[in-house]
Parts: sequence; structure tokens; C-alpha cells
Amino acid sequence: MSETDKRFMAMALSLGRRGMGNCWPNPAVGSVIVKDGRVIGRGWTQPGGRPHSEPVALAQAGAGARGSTVYVTLEPCSHYGKTPPCSLALIEAGVARVVAAIEDSDPRVSGQGFQMLRDAGIEVTTGVLAEQAARDHAGFFRRTEQGRPWVTLKMASSFDGRIATGSGQSKWITGPEARRMVHAMRMRHDAVMVGAGTARADDPSLTVRDMGSKQQPVRVVISRHLDLPLMGQLARTAKDIPVWLCHGTGAGAERIQAWEGLGAKLLPCAVHGVQLDPNDILRQLGQAGLNRVFCEGGSALAASLLAFDLVDELIGFTAGIGIGAEGLPSIGALGLGRLEEAPRFVLEEARPVGADILHRWVRRQEKM
Amino acid sequence: MSETDKRFMAMALSLGRRGMGNCWPNPAVGSVIVKDGRVIGRGWTQPGGRPHSEPVALAQAGAGARGSTVYVTLEPCSHYGKTPPCSLALIEAGVARVVAAIEDSDPRVSGQGFQMLRDAGIEVTTGVLAEQAARDHAGFFRRTEQGRPWVTLKMASSFDGRIATGSGQSKWITGPEARRMVHAMRMRHDAVMVGAGTARADDPSLTVRDMGSKQQPVRVVISRHLDLPLMGQLARTAKDIPVWLCHGTGAGAERIQAWEGLGAKLLPCAVHGVQLDPNDILRQLGQAGLNRVFCEGGSALAASLLAFDLVDELIGFTAGIGIGAEGLPSIGALGLGRLEEAPRFVLEEARPVGADILHRWVRRQEKM
Repeated sequence: MSETDKRFMAMALSLGRRGMGNCWPNPAVGSVIVKDGRVIGRGWTQPGGRPHSEPVALAQAGAGARGSTVYVTLEPCSHYGKTPPCSLALIEAGVARVVAAIEDSDPRVSGQGFQMLRDAGIEVTTGVLAEQAARDHAGFFRRTEQGRPWVTLKMASSFDGRIATGSGQSKWITGPEARRMVHAMRMRHDAVMVGAGTARADDPSLTVRDMGSKQQPVRVVISRHLDLPLMGQLARTAKDIPVWLCHGTGAGAERIQAWEGLGAKLLPCAVHGVQLDPNDILRQLGQAGLNRVFCEGGSALAASLLAFDLVDELIGFTAGIGIGAEGLPSIGALGLGRLEEAPRFVLEEARPVGADILHRWVRRQEKM
Repeated sequence: MSETDKRFMAMALSLGRRGMGNCWPNPAVGSVIVKDGRVIGRGWTQPGGRPHSEPVALAQAGAGARGSTVYVTLEPCSHYGKTPPCSLALIEAGVARVVAAIEDSDPRVSGQGFQMLRDAGIEVTTGVLAEQAARDHAGFFRRTEQGRPWVTLKMASSFDGRIATGSGQSKWITGPEARRMVHAMRMRHDAVMVGAGTARADDPSLTVRDMGSKQQPVRVVISRHLDLPLMGQLARTAKDIPVWLCHGTGAGAERIQAWEGLGAKLLPCAVHGVQLDPNDILRQLGQAGLNRVFCEGGSALAASLLAFDLVDELIGFTAGIGIGAEGLPSIGALGLGRLEEAPRFVLEEARPVGADILHRWVRRQEKM
């Protein structure tokens, strides 16, 4: 593949990332239209998932699109949904060549988009920067293939892996730079998720702040008994920014009604042992359209997701302080027998962020 | 200061580090002798601490030393000890100029070495790469100024700060690259130190292996009651490689005799509460001549050193696995009231090592 193709695809990937976190249930795709070596159109999936990136870029290119090369980070769609398929739009615009990063795993598309283009006489090149594209679309692929979102688990802890002191103090273990980066990470996810214990202890708003972003991620709280404060930050803002509550069948009708009255969406989930079944929680979130979920703990939810092998990406912010054994552990009881059974992740990145360190890992088999 | 001076001092510092870990109680100093832009002599403190670096370099330079410039990473000594002072040797060799990185804080030297040289008409420049020199000699300075060695605390843990599973399995949390780096770190310290629990649980040999090093660090075990296995690795090798045992006054006479018979050195220490007083432990180790101690845990000893603010450098190796709350914590109970009281360290370095990450921190006020 040519260096030119790679260069324009890198540009398309970078554009595509602008949609991350606010175009679910659709994938965050980027497109670049090039003619005679000049970029004449750029597009990315718009808020809410439409229009797709290709019509946005085509509209920008106008008549110039005829005879052009279109770079797109995912196979153009081929099925009639709420809008006509992007492959048809590309054909009608008379483009000469389509360069795609990767095939769409959605069974309604999967190779048929490429076929439609080739049948119309358009030259199709695929597999350009496919690894990066696979990473960017991992959430969308996870949901279309397995019915559940990509789960990023983030933990901010002390050197010894504690997320709070014994008395529950957690403000602040990490510094402002790390906390700011957490907001940037929230922004790139469709939802932020915490367990009920964290929601009660910290009364978090779970919003994206100081990022110049209007769009907010869905706030998901996992609470079997729905025993969450009705006067807290989440309750107060549920009318304006989505709050979804995953609860068990035993949650009282009064609480359900109260939260519905506040504007929350209620998701009844199956129970597994003494807790909500994490597989069912993620299935429900996938069905509701979420591609990327950013879990911020606490210990019990983190342990539950890890024990069921449902964590795709693990992000640690570690501060240079010691809290000691009385502190709250970042991961609750896992019930491991031998060390070999421990959930294992592959390092992606480690670097200083302000006074702390950031380390990012992906599930072993996800390493590309 | 000139770039030339910096360049030769960097060479001297690098030579000096060769002595680290095997020249205690003396500092690991490096010397480079330059004449007409050419290096004609190189030296570093020899095993056991003598000869010092200057006579080694002077011997190499021979008659050429006359009129030369000598770069040395610490102020040349001025007192008569087992050998005549290095300042005198430099004067007798007729060197024209001495460039030193930093003044010696040893009260027997402290500025008098420089004075002796100047009185003999030698040009003296100081403060060249002083920061690096201060770091390299931090152990020697700590001991001459505060009577205790520099303490590096190293912990190899899971993502969630566990050093073993609940059943005590710790082999292996980190990978071979990290473990090899631990051997390199041991080699640069005068002693390796562990608590009794670790000595019992892991039966470690605490030696430097596969590093091409003949010299071994002293093995120090902290055990109030001296309840250590008499058939383990340490007992078996105590005749060949030093084993020092810090114990309380209540340790049984039989155990003391048994260990003395095995060749160990016994260091009775004061008791503080239910444990040995970490201040007294380090005072004893300092008195015995150790400049740099590498502590490898376990939880209780780590907590004790941190609680008494005796950790100078904190090194973490973190693996991408989760062990969960049943696992053994890297740092035992610290008895913190508020988060603000937590011992805090400043990041020096964070990077991948094999499949794991290395992060290195120094005590807040040590940051230079």
C-alpha cells in the first residue's frame, strides 16, 4: 500500500475519532476525499450517528467528487436504513476509487458495501491502516459481534493500589492533569459507568467538564437494590443528561417510580449470586446501543467485570503516595485460585501525566 | 562551566557508578585525567572502598599526570586514614587543575580537600554536574549526614498493588525482564533487605545472579524473634555471602548462637511497639558502613519504613494482572488519618520493562 494512501487514511482516522462518544449506536467513521493530491472533502459521523461521514464529505466536495479518491475508515454501508446507503451515494457522486481501512463486521454490510462499489466499476482498496481502524472501531465491532459494548476500566489509585483511605477519602489521590485526562477519556466513550457504592460514597456527577464539549456521555449506575440517593448530583441532573440505572428485579416499585419520575432510564437485569449478572448488564447496554463504556469502579464492580472477563481495556492512574492496607482496594475480591487464573492484560502505553503515571493495558487476546 | 568539563565529568560519573554496591563504606567515586584533550587515566573506587579513584587514575596516567586536569565526582579526601589523602597524591603528581562535581559532606573533608589543593597552587573548579553527583553519592551523604543508609524500597505487584495471591503465590507476578532488572538494581546497592515474613514465605537467596558480578550485596533480614528457617537458602549460604540479622533483645540465645554458627552477623535493635524500631535498624546498618540499602518488602517492613518516613526512593514494577482484594498488599497498615498525611513521592521515571512497567519515585524533598 502506498505512503500516500496511508497518509490520507491517517487523516480520516483522526477525523473519525471526533465522533467517538457521541455517535452511538453508529461507528465513529472518518472520510477524506482527495482529488489531484488535494483534500476536497472531509467528514465524520455526526452526533447521534447521522449523517454518516461519507455524505458529509461528499457534500463538501460537491461536483469535484467526480473522479476522486475517497478514504474511509470503515466499509461504506450497503443497506437501506433511515437513509440510503453510503455506497450508493459514492457511486452516484461518480468517485473513481475508494480506499477503506477495514471491512464492516455488521452482517447487513460485511463485504457487500465493497461489492456494490466494485460492481459499479469503482476501484476498491482495503486494509489500509487496518490495525488502527480495528482499534478505533473496537466498540462497534464488539457490539455487532458479541452484543455488548467495549469496556474500559479506569482506576486512579495510590502506589499500593488503593482508591481511598480506610475512612473513604479519595479527593484527591491523583493530580489535576490526571483528572483532566479522565474527562477527555469520558468524552471519547458513549457512557460512564459506576457501581452503587461509588455513587453513594462520592456523589459524582460523571459529566465531562472543561473540555469544550456540549455532548455528555450517558451515566450508568449499577445498583441491584436501587438504593441510590434521590437528592444527589445524578438525580438532580437526570432530566438533562441521561442516567441509566441497571437494577435487579427485587428493587422496590417506589424507587423505580421515583427514578423514572426524575427522568432516569431503568434497565432491569438478571441477578447472579448476590450481584447483578455483569454479562446481562452489558448485554442490556449493548442492546440500548452503547459501543464504548468507561467504567470508573468501584472495587466491587471492577472485580465483577474482571472475574467475568468483561474488561477490554484497563487504565491505571497511579500516584506516588502510599495509603496502606486499611485503604479501599481498587479491585475487590476475585476469588482466584492460582496466579495463572488471574486476568492478564498486555501493556499498550506507560507515561507520566502531571505528577502521576498513566498506564494502559488491553485484554491479552485483544493485542493487535 | 564549559561543555568540555561537563563531558569529562559525565565520563567520571559513569566510571564512578561501577563501584556502586561494592565499595561501601566509601563513596563510589570516579576520576578521569585529561591532558591536551586526551584521557590518560581513569579510575573508580575499588572493591571494599580502596584504593580510591584518584590514585587508580594517577597510576594509569604515570608521569603524564604532571600539568593535567583531573575530573573527580567528589571532593578529594584530605585526611590521613588507612592511606595518605588523595589531595596530597594529586599535589605530588603535579596536576594543574582539579574539576570536582561536589563537595564532600564528610566533616573530615568538607571543603578541606579543595583548600589543600588551592594552597598548593592547583586551580580548582567545583559544581560541575553537581546534581547527578549528588544523586550518585546520595547514600554516602545520607550516612555521613544522618547516620543511616539511603533506602530504596522496591515492590513488584499486580495492577491492583498485590504482591502475592491470598494463598501466598507470588511466582511470578512480573516477567523475566523486570526480574532481571531487579538483579541489576541489587548489584548497585550495598545490601538487600527483607522482612522475616518474606524470608519465611519465599525462602529467597537475595543474591545477584546472571549479571557477571562476583561481588554480592549483604543480605539483611529484619526479624524481631529470629524465627527464620535454619535450613533455608540464607542459612545455607551465610558462610560465603554475608547475612546480617536485625533482631530484638527477646530473640532466644539458641537462635542467636545457631545463626552465629552459620556465619551470620547479629545486630540487636531497639523495639518500638510490637516491631523493631526502623530508625534503630537503619542506624545500625549505617554504623556498620552501608550506604545504600535495597528493601524488597514485604508488606509489614514496607509499611514500617514508610510510616517512619525512611524511604528515600520507591520503585514499582507493575504487571498487567488483577489479583483482587484477597491478595497480599504491597504496603501493610499505615494507620493514616487523612489523605494529606500519606507519604508522598515525586516521579522520576516511568516506562515499560518487558511486559510490565517500571516506575521510580523519590521522597518529595529529595527531588532535585
